[in-house]
Amino acid sequence: MSDREAILAANGEFYRAFESLDANAMGELWLRDPRIVCIHPGWHRLVGWGPIMTSWERIFDNILEMKFELGETQVMASGDLAVVVVEENLTQRGYEGTIRTRVLATNVFERAEGRWWIVSHHGSPVISPPEEEEPPLQ
Amino acid sequence: MSDREAILAANGEFYRAFESLDANAMGELWLRDPRIVCIHPGWHRLVGWGPIMTSWERIFDNILEMKFELGETQVMASGDLAVVVVEENLTQRGYEGTIRTRVLATNVFERAEGRWWIVSHHGSPVISPPEEEEPPLQ
Repeated sequence: MSDREAILAANGEFYRAFESLDANAMGELWLRDPRIVCIHPGWHRLVGWGPIMTSWERIFDNILEMKFELGETQVMASGDLAVVVVEENLTQRGYEGTIRTRVLATNVFERAEGRWWIVSHHGSPVISPPEEEEPPLQ
Repeated sequence: MSDREAILAANGEFYRAFESLDANAMGELWLRDPRIVCIHPGWHRLVGWGPIMTSWERIFDNILEMKFELGETQVMASGDLAVVVVEENLTQRGYEGTIRTRVLATNVFERAEGRWWIVSHHGSPVISPPEEEEPPLQ
């Protein structure tokens, strides 16, 4: 398996753990390191194992079902670091109904002990439709 | 200068170019490569030199003044790739007044020809106040 294939596989595992709604499965993919970072869409930055794992537990407690269809994916890698930029088309069923949303994510992976661990997840909502050409102001 | 210092310097240059509102200054910092990625807050993903430079021109055309105060900064680096996660506290003056916003950014840099070039910028709005403990649903 090439580095690129291994990185894409690690990225795929992240979304399967997300769909599993199992915080333990999610926890197995993150590097146990105080430097890890997670930015859920619209939320402030979480740093470190405890806050990040607590956030997954709370998200999973409030969702009944979650399905991802991943769009175009960019991979950048060098040494033991890799960045994946990916579009998440997601359908989530919660207590208040089913919604479909589009999120863009930058996922960062670090290689340690022969496997790729997630060290940063930054998800953000796509507010503007893709047809428009004008970017919004900052 | 250590790698970390050089990466932080490249990140600082990105925000100085942003404040300069000069698309040419911004263009000098990006790797001229079809793989480069830019996600402005709330906007869809732009890929490649042309769309990204056009977006900076349009943003700069609509802003009279822009000031960044950078918050806590995480750096991850290996080989020729580096990731910086940073909080942008920004004040922008436009034709409709002055607004202050908080954005979280993941900036990716690649080393080529002895310097660090930006290859991905992902900015997203912070919607939830930092005091709250519950992350929003996806």
